[in-house]
Amino acid sequence: MKKSLGPKPLALPLPVWVIGVYDPSGRPNAMTASWAGMCCSKPPCLSVSIRAATYTHGCIMASKAFTVSVPSEAHAAQTDYFGAVSGRDKDKFAETGLTPVRAERVNAPYVGEFPVAIECRVVHVAELGLHTQFVGEIMDVKVEAGTLSEAGTLDIQAVRPIIYCPGTRTYHGLGVLLGRAGAMAAR
Amino acid sequence: MKKSLGPKPLALPLPVWVIGVYDPSGRPNAMTASWAGMCCSKPPCLSVSIRAATYTHGCIMASKAFTVSVPSEAHAAQTDYFGAVSGRDKDKFAETGLTPVRAERVNAPYVGEFPVAIECRVVHVAELGLHTQFVGEIMDVKVEAGTLSEAGTLDIQAVRPIIYCPGTRTYHGLGVLLGRAGAMAAR
Repeated sequence: MKKSLGPKPLALPLPVWVIGVYDPSGRPNAMTASWAGMCCSKPPCLSVSIRAATYTHGCIMASKAFTVSVPSEAHAAQTDYFGAVSGRDKDKFAETGLTPVRAERVNAPYVGEFPVAIECRVVHVAELGLHTQFVGEIMDVKVEAGTLSEAGTLDIQAVRPIIYCPGTRTYHGLGVLLGRAGAMAAR
Repeated sequence: MKKSLGPKPLALPLPVWVIGVYDPSGRPNAMTASWAGMCCSKPPCLSVSIRAATYTHGCIMASKAFTVSVPSEAHAAQTDYFGAVSGRDKDKFAETGLTPVRAERVNAPYVGEFPVAIECRVVHVAELGLHTQFVGEIMDVKVEAGTLSEAGTLDIQAVRPIIYCPGTRTYHGLGVLLGRAGAMAAR
């Protein structure tokens, strides 16, 4: 018998991504977001939802571009900082000592030290309420060489990304390999 | 120095959710999806992207409703099955032995044995390419009593959800607690 918690934003597990933008003066900024995920295979698109009150929101509206930098567990404190303060008040790259790297395919910076950078151009904007959802077409995925599997694709066990739980507001690491999609269903 | 992999759908980490629907005849069906995530806090909304070719797609278009059932690690094989076959060909609930439970707030079933069920009504539909993105307003979240934290909110460490890596097509468990949002950034 399940207990009803009411209409609350408690879906899980969620990713922890850092969204990179240039502001209208060309200064790099970034913020942490977890209301985000993949949303199309062809063309490859992901979506990120951001409140209109944030500095990043206005930057994306102006540039129509952003990056997703995927942090590793080791970057958890810096990632938390990117979510805790506003780019209006602080130069977050300078404060954390992390490096803004100019993306090649879109007008936005990514975090050089994080293992994965995804360059996106905005193709769809939906005003959903408190959050605006930006759908970004993935123009390139850049990864550290050490994060590739033997088959040459991105291996989550090498990336060691951070996972978010919205109710408890906690960050978590990745656990054990459970199996391969399409190969577990035999009963 | 990062290596470019080109424009590919490789963002991670991703959730593993089972999307529940009634078909036009009232038969319960469900499919596994990972192109999904939270997308708004007020009203609370999540989004799920589904290919038009799937049986579930037509069911959501007709009913304007779906559920998200969040499986635990222990349900990995059944969850993989829900993603491997079509509801056109099989009664997936009957085949897995799992129980379709009628949602209270929307016209859709959820998986009774999974620890978390989220009832959604469709409020926005975006045709993005191969995938259609459905934004669902969360009408209720139902959870097993054993998944609540001391503060009474949903605790990911009790849910033990499954995490997906698209490149390697692998399922993973949850790892260790890294810290609390807003409490790690002090430097």
